[in-house]
Amino acid sequence: MEVQSAGKETYRAKTSKGEATRQKLLDVAEEIFGAKGYFHTSVVDITQRAGVAQGTFYVYFPGKQHIFRELVEELSHNLRREIQIAVNGAAGRKEKEIRGFAAFFDYVRKHRNLYRIVQEAEFVDPALYKWYYRRLAEGYVKGLQEAMDRGEFRRLDPEAVAYCLMGMGEFLGMRWVLWEKKDVPEEAFRAAMELIMGGLEKRD
Amino acid sequence: MEVQSAGKETYRAKTSKGEATRQKLLDVAEEIFGAKGYFHTSVVDITQRAGVAQGTFYVYFPGKQHIFRELVEELSHNLRREIQIAVNGAAGRKEKEIRGFAAFFDYVRKHRNLYRIVQEAEFVDPALYKWYYRRLAEGYVKGLQEAMDRGEFRRLDPEAVAYCLMGMGEFLGMRWVLWEKKDVPEEAFRAAMELIMGGLEKRD
Repeated sequence: MEVQSAGKETYRAKTSKGEATRQKLLDVAEEIFGAKGYFHTSVVDITQRAGVAQGTFYVYFPGKQHIFRELVEELSHNLRREIQIAVNGAAGRKEKEIRGFAAFFDYVRKHRNLYRIVQEAEFVDPALYKWYYRRLAEGYVKGLQEAMDRGEFRRLDPEAVAYCLMGMGEFLGMRWVLWEKKDVPEEAFRAAMELIMGGLEKRD
Repeated sequence: MEVQSAGKETYRAKTSKGEATRQKLLDVAEEIFGAKGYFHTSVVDITQRAGVAQGTFYVYFPGKQHIFRELVEELSHNLRREIQIAVNGAAGRKEKEIRGFAAFFDYVRKHRNLYRIVQEAEFVDPALYKWYYRRLAEGYVKGLQEAMDRGEFRRLDPEAVAYCLMGMGEFLGMRWVLWEKKDVPEEAFRAAMELIMGGLEKRD
């Protein structure tokens, strides 16, 4: 992992009130960074919208770059958790892919600024940008590897397959969830699943 | 097309010397926007690096946003042309996919700032960002539709398939060409092609 957990260098709220303030700041940061962009956002923009004194901000985050990093880490963590919950208990890899993609689109719908924030990471903190995708790929590779070991999927470079499937999800989410502000149409979702299963399922 | 051709609003160099100056400015813009980011780049940065008087810049482009737009249009146009040249005369859809992906990776290798510039378009000019992908998808959809009509590919929502394949290419290019500064490894390239052909080829 190229990015140190931000938790090591920033204050972790010990009280529930402190935790609520910290979460409030992160939620507002997600909203404002997404709307105005990182470079046009100031710490004051965040504290004013959050209704928090500027001094309080610095109790939780040393600066703008730090809250940005924690936000990306939080978005990554929550996305992976949602996908994990969705695929848990699914029977077979096909069901896992369907549920995983659906959970991803659902997360994008609820966090419309996810793409913009991750894209800005490329400029704010390139290592964080890579970390975001590498971390997402890690879990995917593990699941694909297992499906290959069980003989459900053909043996293909699992990392390449993981990046292919992540790219598919990202582009479908962009095309429909972000641009059209609607769910990925059934026909499009089905096309992606047919492509994946046709391409990866073992035939014999 | 959502974005008007920038040619309609900016001066088109009539002389070869003018064309060379205009191209020089675009080349330098590609370099500097990629390195420093759009918001940290000024027109002066571009003219100084290009060795061109500031007044001359405005003969060709009304401002920073305009040269950025023309640059994205140029990158899009050249990428599509390179892919077109590569796939021309390929026998069958599989050969077309192999050549098209290879041409894309080659273009990314030669234009390492392509991703960063397109990603910044999301913040500089969101309509331009969408245009870039829609325009790329258009040609892809056409090719896929033809392969489906000829019975080479299964009938699946061609636009969804186009976005899936574009996403695959983008993520593989990011993972290896950009991050590792090398070609997409043979194993990874093969995995992507197997996934595509297994998923799309008609079986009967």
